[in-house]
Amino acid sequence: MKIALSTTVDASVPETITRTRAALADQGFGVLTEIDMAATLKTKIDVDMEEYVILGACNPPMAHRAVSAEKQIGLLLPCNVVVRADTGRPGTSIVEAMNPELMVTVVDDNPELAAVADEVTARLQAAIDAL
Amino acid sequence: MKIALSTTVDASVPETITRTRAALADQGFGVLTEIDMAATLKTKIDVDMEEYVILGACNPPMAHRAVSAEKQIGLLLPCNVVVRADTGRPGTSIVEAMNPELMVTVVDDNPELAAVADEVTARLQAAIDAL
Repeated sequence: MKIALSTTVDASVPETITRTRAALADQGFGVLTEIDMAATLKTKIDVDMEEYVILGACNPPMAHRAVSAEKQIGLLLPCNVVVRADTGRPGTSIVEAMNPELMVTVVDDNPELAAVADEVTARLQAAIDAL
Repeated sequence: MKIALSTTVDASVPETITRTRAALADQGFGVLTEIDMAATLKTKIDVDMEEYVILGACNPPMAHRAVSAEKQIGLLLPCNVVVRADTGRPGTSIVEAMNPELMVTVVDDNPELAAVADEVTARLQAAIDAL
């Protein structure tokens, strides 16, 4: 199974973040958290890396269904969407969403969780496809 | 494989969050994000659930090693630590950290990532054991 649903965008990281937030909103996902990993690592341990931002996306009705089906699933929420610079192609960004099917593979047989994961996957894929 | 490293604490959720943050700090983890899932779901879709908070914990040197070993690993960062009420035992909280070994199972053979995951697991387990 793929760990990510991904695409590339011919735009800078900040512009791609703006587009990604809009595409996620169109699919019912709010962004609860935004971590600038490159800035965090620069501040904390003075290392340099390419632009690398982690958005924490949450579709509240689906999060509620998931956590009702499996109380531990908060360990994999919100759904991370990484926007990072493609170091091989300046001006291009990579967008990768965590494949929600991961939730199903790490939890024992749970049909309701599997149903939610399928729906979240479809919506995240639609957001990715819209970029 | 277990999805979580977990324990229970005979204290309220807010008090347990304070203790968990301190135990994580002792192991080199900062808390980059804190999501009050119960409050979020109440605000967004007006549903009630028990206290349920997701802390996003990050040990910067280890995060850097992990992302250097596998660029996609930001999909599973920061390490989530859930603090939630034990509905069966009032006054008791459940603390669950995402088992970092999950990273290894979802990524193809990557010895350096496996080494980092082992170290992060040991530190998170030490934080859990200190509660």
